[in-house]
Amino acid sequence: MSTSGHLKMKKIPVKPFWWDRGLFIIDQTELPEKEIVLKLDKVKKVYEAIKNLKIRGAPLIGCIAAYGVVVSFIENENLPFCKLKDKIKKDIEKLKSSRPTAYNLFYALRRMEKIIDNFGISKKKLKQNLLKEAEKIYKEDLIACYKIGEYGEKIIKDGMGILTHCNAGGLATSGFGTALAPIYVAKQKCKKIHVYVDETRPVLQGARLTCWELEKNRIPYTLICDNMAGYLMSKKEIDIVIVGADRIAKNGDTANKIGTYSLAVLANYHKIPFYIAAPISTFDFNIEDGSKIPIEERDENEVKKINGKYISPENADVFNPAFDVTPNYLITGFITEKGIIKPEEIEKLKNMGG
Amino acid sequence: MSTSGHLKMKKIPVKPFWWDRGLFIIDQTELPEKEIVLKLDKVKKVYEAIKNLKIRGAPLIGCIAAYGVVVSFIENENLPFCKLKDKIKKDIEKLKSSRPTAYNLFYALRRMEKIIDNFGISKKKLKQNLLKEAEKIYKEDLIACYKIGEYGEKIIKDGMGILTHCNAGGLATSGFGTALAPIYVAKQKCKKIHVYVDETRPVLQGARLTCWELEKNRIPYTLICDNMAGYLMSKKEIDIVIVGADRIAKNGDTANKIGTYSLAVLANYHKIPFYIAAPISTFDFNIEDGSKIPIEERDENEVKKINGKYISPENADVFNPAFDVTPNYLITGFITEKGIIKPEEIEKLKNMGG
Repeated sequence: MSTSGHLKMKKIPVKPFWWDRGLFIIDQTELPEKEIVLKLDKVKKVYEAIKNLKIRGAPLIGCIAAYGVVVSFIENENLPFCKLKDKIKKDIEKLKSSRPTAYNLFYALRRMEKIIDNFGISKKKLKQNLLKEAEKIYKEDLIACYKIGEYGEKIIKDGMGILTHCNAGGLATSGFGTALAPIYVAKQKCKKIHVYVDETRPVLQGARLTCWELEKNRIPYTLICDNMAGYLMSKKEIDIVIVGADRIAKNGDTANKIGTYSLAVLANYHKIPFYIAAPISTFDFNIEDGSKIPIEERDENEVKKINGKYISPENADVFNPAFDVTPNYLITGFITEKGIIKPEEIEKLKNMGG
Repeated sequence: MSTSGHLKMKKIPVKPFWWDRGLFIIDQTELPEKEIVLKLDKVKKVYEAIKNLKIRGAPLIGCIAAYGVVVSFIENENLPFCKLKDKIKKDIEKLKSSRPTAYNLFYALRRMEKIIDNFGISKKKLKQNLLKEAEKIYKEDLIACYKIGEYGEKIIKDGMGILTHCNAGGLATSGFGTALAPIYVAKQKCKKIHVYVDETRPVLQGARLTCWELEKNRIPYTLICDNMAGYLMSKKEIDIVIVGADRIAKNGDTANKIGTYSLAVLANYHKIPFYIAAPISTFDFNIEDGSKIPIEERDENEVKKINGKYISPENADVFNPAFDVTPNYLITGFITEKGIIKPEEIEKLKNMGG
């Protein structure tokens, strides 16, 4: 995979996956302790990698799902052409069911479906076109994230304390990140910044992944527990909050990692700007508002067990939503590849995407 | 230790320590997995038990420190009387330095100091009087907490969802708890309630201790991660928030476990009543406001390591304040042994305590 001319000279902060006659990922459940590379040579493995958070982050889920369709082709190549197409379509449905909230999953798979419907005149052509479309989705994300970085960098002032939640970095995308992209660009421009990283219970993507990639890119940061963010805001250590998104409704209501809503309320109380950074592929123009976004509830052992050991009574009752919805009126703006927009301007993006 | 007549018939929910010719505690760092009893037969052990959170919770720290002074007497009994008194006073200073925020520690140790100054005419008398004073501090806490339960129960309505943070239960006190006392009394009165328990990072006192004692007392509860509280409030699952306190300033500003301030802001935003439950021994009438309360910062490995394994890069920079301060205007009321009072009524309590 080569990047566009625009990006050739820019170092990509993180490479969470690559295609080399097959799909390879870094298993994010093993970070930061181990960097283990997995080959996903079966759709079942792609499905499980998404479901079990070996890869996560809405834009990355989109990229991996797109390449997952190519994996499906290769896995079933020996079937008669018609059966092959049917099988790939079944696999697409399977992949769609891996996680319910991240919109990029559905966005990417719909584009891959269109290739099968419209550009599948022969096996050879179909394979070429599927691979081309997956690469296109990947490159578009790379460029979109870099542009998010360029637009977002403009609102980051020298000396700022920036709070982020979960991992919306290179590891959650094709490599530049969404919420972290402006931080990477600010670093390139030698701005002095300090990032506060919410550890992000229960899966600890902040502690495990965001710290890992900020460290790799030599960006100064401090890890905090999620419940410390309000205290830091009251101490005036936080000048801006930037987080990613899993799905954004037409009115700007935004589903993102559980805890985002609390941060938005806290930022509002402390009059701190609260930004969502996301490519247009995360906007769901078919959904009027956040109440329609399906919220995934995950296994209770994500909360009860850490590092293989219970932190609570074994039979404790647990509530474990993976996401929450932040209403548009708590969001200062959306940092997109088309610029920074207000919730009420989202409609304009509709025909600009992908 | 026998309890007062008033309480004789009431079952104490939890026994976190007892005196039986020596000081015994349940090691709270091992809960909920193991119930390990430790004998603290040296002041050094008492100091370390407090410092390393084997026992914690402001009222319990007060009780243990008081008995710690008796331990000092027994440990040094063979010294000449004058040297013995000096040594005990040195030990009191040592105990005072174990943790800086919990006011009950200083309150209890000051009372024990007064015994040495005023009632130490002979070794035998001194020992008797020290033990009597420690027992008095314990029993007063037991009664105060039970009364907190009786007053607090009145604001708990049938069917309520109650959110609590950290552990302000039996394990944090002489046995009834502060924030949990109204819940125990509501349960005795057969009110249907449901408790939401913040896991309370980094030390997880909610997940480990509050769940354990609610389970022991058959009170329905759900464990959540700290960052889920706002989402639950937005879903109208929380009708009231009740937490404990480590120190309350004259104006009502309250130091409590880190994360309390964020909860208070969230409760305010969602118009949910936010109560502090604490005995008068937690009120520091010498401090005008919360800015004067010393906030303990603890070891960064409390955040970085869980169950013996790192959850972040090993050299991650960490901020780990053990407490935050909630300003009086975010507090609906204080549930005390003298009734439920508003922040502006605190002055009235001054001559009612202990």
